[in-house]
Amino acid sequence: MLNELIKTIRGLTIDAVEKANSGHPGLPMGMADVAAILWSEFLKHNPANPGWADRDRFILSAGHGSMLIYNLLHLFGYDLSMDELKNFRQWGSKTPGHPESHETPGVETTTGPLGQGIANSVGFALAETSLAARFNRDDYDIVNHYTYVIASDGDLEEGVSHEACSFAGHNKLGKLIVFYDDNNVTIDGDTELSFSEDVVKRFEGYGWHTLKIDGHDHDAIRTAIRTAQSVGNKPTIIACKTIIGFGSPSLAGKHDAHSDPFGAEEIKLTKENLGIPVEPAFFVPEVLNTLPKQTIEKGKNAETVWAKKLAAYKQAHADTARTFEQCLSGLVSEKALDIPAFPAGGAIATRSASGKVLDHLAPLIPSLMGGSADLTPSNKTLAKGETSFSPEHPTGRYIHYGVREHGMAAIMNGLSLHGGVIPFAGTFFVFTDYMRAAMRMSALMGKQVIYVLTHDSIGLGEDGPTHQPEAHLTSLRAMPNMQVIRPMDANETAEGWKMALKNTSGPTSLVLTRQNLPIYDREKEGMAPAKEASKGGYVLMEDKGFDTIIIAAGSEVEIAVNAKKSLNDQGIKVRIVSMPCTEAFDAQSADYRNTVLPSGIRKRIAIEAGVTLGWYKYVGLDGKVIGMDHYGASAPYKTIYEKFGITAEALVKAAKGL
Amino acid sequence: MLNELIKTIRGLTIDAVEKANSGHPGLPMGMADVAAILWSEFLKHNPANPGWADRDRFILSAGHGSMLIYNLLHLFGYDLSMDELKNFRQWGSKTPGHPESHETPGVETTTGPLGQGIANSVGFALAETSLAARFNRDDYDIVNHYTYVIASDGDLEEGVSHEACSFAGHNKLGKLIVFYDDNNVTIDGDTELSFSEDVVKRFEGYGWHTLKIDGHDHDAIRTAIRTAQSVGNKPTIIACKTIIGFGSPSLAGKHDAHSDPFGAEEIKLTKENLGIPVEPAFFVPEVLNTLPKQTIEKGKNAETVWAKKLAAYKQAHADTARTFEQCLSGLVSEKALDIPAFPAGGAIATRSASGKVLDHLAPLIPSLMGGSADLTPSNKTLAKGETSFSPEHPTGRYIHYGVREHGMAAIMNGLSLHGGVIPFAGTFFVFTDYMRAAMRMSALMGKQVIYVLTHDSIGLGEDGPTHQPEAHLTSLRAMPNMQVIRPMDANETAEGWKMALKNTSGPTSLVLTRQNLPIYDREKEGMAPAKEASKGGYVLMEDKGFDTIIIAAGSEVEIAVNAKKSLNDQGIKVRIVSMPCTEAFDAQSADYRNTVLPSGIRKRIAIEAGVTLGWYKYVGLDGKVIGMDHYGASAPYKTIYEKFGITAEALVKAAKGL
Repeated sequence: MLNELIKTIRGLTIDAVEKANSGHPGLPMGMADVAAILWSEFLKHNPANPGWADRDRFILSAGHGSMLIYNLLHLFGYDLSMDELKNFRQWGSKTPGHPESHETPGVETTTGPLGQGIANSVGFALAETSLAARFNRDDYDIVNHYTYVIASDGDLEEGVSHEACSFAGHNKLGKLIVFYDDNNVTIDGDTELSFSEDVVKRFEGYGWHTLKIDGHDHDAIRTAIRTAQSVGNKPTIIACKTIIGFGSPSLAGKHDAHSDPFGAEEIKLTKENLGIPVEPAFFVPEVLNTLPKQTIEKGKNAETVWAKKLAAYKQAHADTARTFEQCLSGLVSEKALDIPAFPAGGAIATRSASGKVLDHLAPLIPSLMGGSADLTPSNKTLAKGETSFSPEHPTGRYIHYGVREHGMAAIMNGLSLHGGVIPFAGTFFVFTDYMRAAMRMSALMGKQVIYVLTHDSIGLGEDGPTHQPEAHLTSLRAMPNMQVIRPMDANETAEGWKMALKNTSGPTSLVLTRQNLPIYDREKEGMAPAKEASKGGYVLMEDKGFDTIIIAAGSEVEIAVNAKKSLNDQGIKVRIVSMPCTEAFDAQSADYRNTVLPSGIRKRIAIEAGVTLGWYKYVGLDGKVIGMDHYGASAPYKTIYEKFGITAEALVKAAKGL
Repeated sequence: MLNELIKTIRGLTIDAVEKANSGHPGLPMGMADVAAILWSEFLKHNPANPGWADRDRFILSAGHGSMLIYNLLHLFGYDLSMDELKNFRQWGSKTPGHPESHETPGVETTTGPLGQGIANSVGFALAETSLAARFNRDDYDIVNHYTYVIASDGDLEEGVSHEACSFAGHNKLGKLIVFYDDNNVTIDGDTELSFSEDVVKRFEGYGWHTLKIDGHDHDAIRTAIRTAQSVGNKPTIIACKTIIGFGSPSLAGKHDAHSDPFGAEEIKLTKENLGIPVEPAFFVPEVLNTLPKQTIEKGKNAETVWAKKLAAYKQAHADTARTFEQCLSGLVSEKALDIPAFPAGGAIATRSASGKVLDHLAPLIPSLMGGSADLTPSNKTLAKGETSFSPEHPTGRYIHYGVREHGMAAIMNGLSLHGGVIPFAGTFFVFTDYMRAAMRMSALMGKQVIYVLTHDSIGLGEDGPTHQPEAHLTSLRAMPNMQVIRPMDANETAEGWKMALKNTSGPTSLVLTRQNLPIYDREKEGMAPAKEASKGGYVLMEDKGFDTIIIAAGSEVEIAVNAKKSLNDQGIKVRIVSMPCTEAFDAQSADYRNTVLPSGIRKRIAIEAGVTLGWYKYVGLDGKVIGMDHYGASAPYKTIYEKFGITAEALVKAAKGL
């Protein structure tokens, strides 16, 4: 049956790509042996319940070879019909061009942008290791599964693979097993054009267990997987020498097999060569008809064994089991969301406020896993009493990601996709540029990942323009499904954390200051309460009969508040709108938005220490935006604000000029 | 003198950080031995002419250690006074928090965001290798210099270092010499927290020549540099075991030495320990007074030898020499800029039009170096007749960067900074997310780098949302000094290339379609000529007495043109504005802008297959933006446009609704 399975994967692949008239046949054909053996002989899974918590994870990092995973899912009994295979890459199908976790049952993560999948897989393995260490007891290994990955040359060329794999080696994530499709071919041609590194030596440098096999030798594949499973303290990479487009008489081993339909004639020759009926297309031999039932039966049995173990575990370790299930639920308790208010008076940076909020949250939310890309003291991400994760101390919930922003974000995606973990981690806001590709994947997949982004503007001062974000707020706000929150003070920061924890269908970016900001006595100052922040934008304070609106976010709200007196002195009556989250504001009803920004009032000024582009949506053609459409400078921050004219004086001048 | 020099570097470092009350003393103190020996005994440079073309390049990739390079520049006679050292990190000084190439003479590249410097250095070395191969003749080695780099743990943790260094090994860039400051310390604490890889083994995997030394052993440093210089066919990494904050009794070897002022007491103890007078601060011993003069004299002599060689070369190889000087000038001939127009009729994707423009440009611009991140056939970046660069064929001007977008962009920055090269290269537009950090550096440094970004929207079709950019236009347009050009057709594409070639003070992103777009007969259709594109936005066509403006960019201009007839049929008279480059449009006079978008006309619609955020600046509160504030889908592209409502019908409906 195995040989039939492998042949069928190859045949379906070329038929589907041909029918779609686009797609990538090369990888599925080259890796069919490895994938078929892994799935039929090793993978622990239940196609009838793709969400089973203790399943092995299979990640096709080389997402362009999507027909490989679609074939596997279909042939092994997942909810993916033959019609879906025939609708490959068509509108509304469950078989999009690249695998998408929110579209197709059994797809663990969305891949295609190279390097993301393998980096996600490190997060999956980290989640498994962490949850196993925290919750397994004695004989109750309720968390015990592998993470398998197929990665291509392109995946390993990408920098994010370096960051994540170096991290995986450091953290000895032994249940991560990567099959490297070493096929010597990329789009431009032979890998000799650009890629000649000794991948195995590189991964040895990372502290991985390494193996090299012929990717078409079935016994070698089996032995390699068994050996990999037996090495518990190192992740394994199995370099599989394969022939891309295996089976095609004219295209096998050539880069032409990578990403184009074969054409009718070559399909015929390939099928003849492989011993597959040339007609009909999408042929599946009878011998495979029982595969779904067999796989589901085996999977159900495995799941039942696990469920019994879990039941006994609940008896034996009731408290721990409750915490475990709370983690798996993804829910956060009301008690946790009841964050104490910051008492009025004094001043505190919103990054420090965030740190204090974390002190409250961490003990109450067992699924939280924090971290930083080597900026822990600056990001204030390490909550009181939390300990660092390490191979020697795997119960620690704080991750030292190293100077690896992109890897960190992609690993967090994996943590979130795995389940049982709500990941958050910090870096400087400007370095979102390094991890933007992975942040976009959080948003595209709709996963709850919390980015703690401190040092949010020229307010960071002396480090200078390399470290001062300018376009980053506009740029992140433009990203669909990314909730960007820039709080004006400590209490809006607490609200921001609540919004992040409640947003279970997408990521949140908390954008926080380095510099101190006043904690207002909102009642005394006539300001609305901070809980209004959850609406995204709200009237903070106003003069009776105002005819001018000032919209501000984050640290610039203080400037607006400071300008109010001068404005009043000059007879200008204003409303100040605090706008911590434009996305949430846009999601309010038109009525609410019109209450905050009445359409009749066109004297509007927005102020933010960043580029102006994103604010015209709210001030229109008749308004004004005070910001900086240029790079920052190195100096104490108050000087920079002065020199760049992001000041109360500038606001007054602008208001007078409207 | 050497020992005095080293001590002085350490002393000045702690004094400057103390005075600024911020900065990073650890690295300059740890690497003072290496740097002092390199600069006084090996570096070929002339402080009186930091722009000398054949100087060795020195790159402080670990830019946080900026006081190291400022001290070196000052002590060796560059135009950087003691007052500047005393003004470290202050407004208007030439000594910003991190070194910036556009601020300080002698700083080759802006560093600070980790990994960028070492990746730039690969570009420097590539430029040297390429220019040497193309222009050196017989005894005339007019291009013959080294690229030296100091890199930290953080640099090597970053993914971009993997991409660039794997590339450097593949391409055997033997004149690249990297000193790795192996000090075991990062911000979070000891590197044991997150970074335990065997860096030397990893670089062996890349095909580098590797050495390990004690970074405080002067003879070992000298021997290592000489050995590195002698290995011509491999880049060298010298792992220098050092003590961070060397000389400080309490802080040496600790992460506390990394990024904080020492305080008066520890400064005193450190100076006593090192044998430096405690007072005055910023002490430079007399023995170093002659160093500037000596260095300049030596440098001038070296430059004179080179100038004589160049003169003789010009005699012996007049044509080649002319081409060489044309490259160094950075200028592009009028003949090259005279790009033939595309004749009207038919349809062609703007990526293909770009390919044809390159066929024209490549032979006429000797400084052009093209490339792609493994998408050559898709990006259409390989001009006719051009050959690929390889170690065996170093005269080739086309670079196969591999699947390494971030490395590619950072290497292009290095090519541009080195001089003699105008780099351009391609990838899919969506993957700008991978290389955004390096694109920002092109823009911040004001370097001419041309990004060819194809597959610019849902118009790419079946590959699906992972590959379809949505926020990327807004996000890149928000980046200061990044010229983003999205042409509506082949002829605007040619104009875009002209704009890119003329923009010598910053990067350009050419954003191009996968799908075909009509080449209009502009005269017949009553359209303005494509050369108007250089203004960024212009009136493409209009009805007499129009009261509605449609603003469109790129492929959506066709939709606007197609909608015009229906609009007219319904009695709506419109003006269509083609807006290929908002930045260029914003830079026009207010008068011109008002001519194109008269302030009195508020019925405005913008249409673009991307997020809407950036267009409100032009349509205001009363207008409408047709776009997609969500992710794409996998299907043939015409279906996606239909389903998402980015159509002529939607335009008509919107216009009627205004």
